[in-house]
Amino acid sequence: MNQYNNLKFESIDIELKQLNINLQEMITAEHPILYAAAEQLFNAGGKRIRPTILLIIAKLIVNQGKISNEQKRLAEITEIIHTASLVHDDIIDNSETRRGMETVHNVFTNKIAVLAGDFLFAQSSWYLANLNNSDVVKVISKVITDFAEGEVQQGTKSFDYKISIKNYIEKSFYKTASLIANSCKGITILNSNNSKIQNKFYLYGKHLGLAFQIIDDILDITSSTDKLGKPAGSDLKNGNLTAPLIFALEEKPEIIKLINREFQNSEDITQTINLIKSTKGIQKAKDLAIEHIQLAIHIMNKEYPDKEIKDILRISYYILDRIN
Amino acid sequence: MNQYNNLKFESIDIELKQLNINLQEMITAEHPILYAAAEQLFNAGGKRIRPTILLIIAKLIVNQGKISNEQKRLAEITEIIHTASLVHDDIIDNSETRRGMETVHNVFTNKIAVLAGDFLFAQSSWYLANLNNSDVVKVISKVITDFAEGEVQQGTKSFDYKISIKNYIEKSFYKTASLIANSCKGITILNSNNSKIQNKFYLYGKHLGLAFQIIDDILDITSSTDKLGKPAGSDLKNGNLTAPLIFALEEKPEIIKLINREFQNSEDITQTINLIKSTKGIQKAKDLAIEHIQLAIHIMNKEYPDKEIKDILRISYYILDRIN
Repeated sequence: MNQYNNLKFESIDIELKQLNINLQEMITAEHPILYAAAEQLFNAGGKRIRPTILLIIAKLIVNQGKISNEQKRLAEITEIIHTASLVHDDIIDNSETRRGMETVHNVFTNKIAVLAGDFLFAQSSWYLANLNNSDVVKVISKVITDFAEGEVQQGTKSFDYKISIKNYIEKSFYKTASLIANSCKGITILNSNNSKIQNKFYLYGKHLGLAFQIIDDILDITSSTDKLGKPAGSDLKNGNLTAPLIFALEEKPEIIKLINREFQNSEDITQTINLIKSTKGIQKAKDLAIEHIQLAIHIMNKEYPDKEIKDILRISYYILDRIN
Repeated sequence: MNQYNNLKFESIDIELKQLNINLQEMITAEHPILYAAAEQLFNAGGKRIRPTILLIIAKLIVNQGKISNEQKRLAEITEIIHTASLVHDDIIDNSETRRGMETVHNVFTNKIAVLAGDFLFAQSSWYLANLNNSDVVKVISKVITDFAEGEVQQGTKSFDYKISIKNYIEKSFYKTASLIANSCKGITILNSNNSKIQNKFYLYGKHLGLAFQIIDDILDITSSTDKLGKPAGSDLKNGNLTAPLIFALEEKPEIIKLINREFQNSEDITQTINLIKSTKGIQKAKDLAIEHIQLAIHIMNKEYPDKEIKDILRISYYILDRIN
């Protein structure tokens, strides 16, 4: 535990509380099953990292710290899209738990999970349309196509030991960073027509998002089921080869044999995790995440003095600190 | 075969050909698997009924028959949304064939089908946003939430012999008629701000859509696998109780026993189909479809002289004529 583990930001505390209330109210379905599926996720202790990032950015760029209703709404929409992607992601990965709770497709059925995800995506489109800003709709629509691209890339590179760090970063961009990058851009579009500023925040979000995914992938190797809220080594089991393993392969080519037999049992998973831990794989992955955080911070530093962006710095370092 | 089986409309022939070309070009994905999944559907002999309805309406309401690019685009978007819903629908129903071809989730996997559907929904949102008309985006976003509602209602009323015609119509609205109603409204919004006219076309689309679904449900009972492109009795197998069966139950309550044991084998399906055929169920369902078509036509007749709406009359009767 350290200062960064506490995700509380006083400057946006009120907005974040309101966001949690609004999320519950926004997802109303005539049918209770859809509602239950969605509710389960919204209650499941999500850290609201995406809305936190967006509200901090909004606070920085708006006049006198008055975040607009449209910006608040976009923060909510982003969390809904994220949640929708989790529901479909869990079907794709066949996950049984998420954030320590059973997944929608496990509690209910695959069918309900497909629909609950569709429903959440559709709700987000509806709220998005109601922002009455076509540029924002365009930017955010791109996220969902990217999400599908990313998952497919992940699927086709499944158990493929030839995957490069470049492939991995591309897949991570589509899967994770696109939502953060594009919503950071969207929050800025709602404030100003300055496309230079919009692009800076896009890049900030992109690098933050990539770092976030890399750290997530490290945690899948180093953490325990208890801490993750899902079984450790899930990525390996699903054939999703990530940075720590890709780096480890340089030192321990014998891992290829385990990949090729698709980690046939839990001993294979344990052996692979131990092999990765015996290399510089995890450290190299960490370094890669740090590089992206530094890039993100560098972009902000060029624009704003440190004092003004202290919350941005805190949330950026928080991303890294999850592994300490 | 009769005049209505030929869905050729000279007035929109050029636009429909262009639509087929555009659909292929619109769905470009960086990854070939998504492309293949989408392509399979776009090639699979869809009748393009939805775009046909929309283009006919557009032709009627625009000045000098010049359909705008935005209206053409909306017709394309509607077909993409419809296709996306089919992909997810086939996962939900666990269908093995559609339009006589294997379904996406069967050729590829469930995972790819979830993603291909997401991808198509996302593409449609993207093109929708690019129409730069928030009202149209709102109207069309509603369709996807309705689609999810409808499928869930269908799921919860599965094998429930107490389902009423009212429940059935509501479910059919969400599943099918909402897309037709709202896209008919959207095509009108792109032409005029007159909300009275918009609502007339909404209602026209709603009744047409309901009739369309009822006829589809009759065909599932009366037609053969060859003609349907999917196994007859699929609805029964999935527990989807439709108008012919609901009406038949009034005369043959013994069907309840078969429903309650969830049509345990193909003999149960055959027996149920025969029982339905021995009642007035199919005729009553047909009458219900005719009522909705008459309502749809009545709405148009009040607004336009017969001569002007001959294509609208033809497409409306075509919907019915599929069962003759």
